[in-house]
Amino acid sequence: MPRRYFEDLQVGQVWEHGPRTVSRDEVVAFAREFDPQPFHLDEEAALRSPYRGLIASGWHTAALCQRMVIDGLEGESASLGSPGVDELRWLRPVRPGDTLWLRVECVETRPSHSKPDRGLARFRYDLRNQAGETVMTMTGLALFARRPEAS
Amino acid sequence: MPRRYFEDLQVGQVWEHGPRTVSRDEVVAFAREFDPQPFHLDEEAALRSPYRGLIASGWHTAALCQRMVIDGLEGESASLGSPGVDELRWLRPVRPGDTLWLRVECVETRPSHSKPDRGLARFRYDLRNQAGETVMTMTGLALFARRPEAS
Repeated sequence: MPRRYFEDLQVGQVWEHGPRTVSRDEVVAFAREFDPQPFHLDEEAALRSPYRGLIASGWHTAALCQRMVIDGLEGESASLGSPGVDELRWLRPVRPGDTLWLRVECVETRPSHSKPDRGLARFRYDLRNQAGETVMTMTGLALFARRPEAS
Repeated sequence: MPRRYFEDLQVGQVWEHGPRTVSRDEVVAFAREFDPQPFHLDEEAALRSPYRGLIASGWHTAALCQRMVIDGLEGESASLGSPGVDELRWLRPVRPGDTLWLRVECVETRPSHSKPDRGLARFRYDLRNQAGETVMTMTGLALFARRPEAS
């Protein structure tokens, strides 16, 4: 399988991932382990919350994005992991039964000066639901190996 | 149980959460579901990666932070959820067997102008391992209900 190295990334490249439908059981299972707040766990309590129904933990939504990216882009990449994320925003609730689509755009590439075997790329994420509403955005950083003959 | 409303938050308040030890099985289970990259999943492949051993997904580390906060602060709060996170940084690997401690400091509080029943707070997160090394930092935003008689 051809690997996607730093040199293969270009500003303006866009990837689309999805669909991914979110079930009630997985919303509750994630919440039970990582984010046991009433509006993520318990339908009755969630109805009385400002969200008026069960919603996925924002961290669950972010983790689902990661899975969608790995299943698409990263599965064939020379990714060396991520130093972080900027401006992660949970804009609208993700509810059980929602179907998610992720658009990822490369917005910057920068060779590393201190480590010539790698480069940094910046990606803009836009996660939408079945109604076309944006539910989450973020800017993700990722390190990629440079193509061996180029470094 | 007394609820922690927006009015109860003060800039400079600090909370300490932990310890939380991370097992190999939970690292692999999270990775299998959300971040199936070789260095999160497979000890042999991880040894050949730049990380030289299995490391937790950064999203797993972030989700563990959330759980530590909920078990401490948020369990007794009037939290209305979070609009997002800024400058999330994964600074060092989290490895199976590591024990994590989280320090959270309130760095800003701001009443909402558009919605007088709530306010926004900003928190600085510093997650350390058993050696005292910072492994993750971020600035988290959270909405809190105002004390009913104050709104």
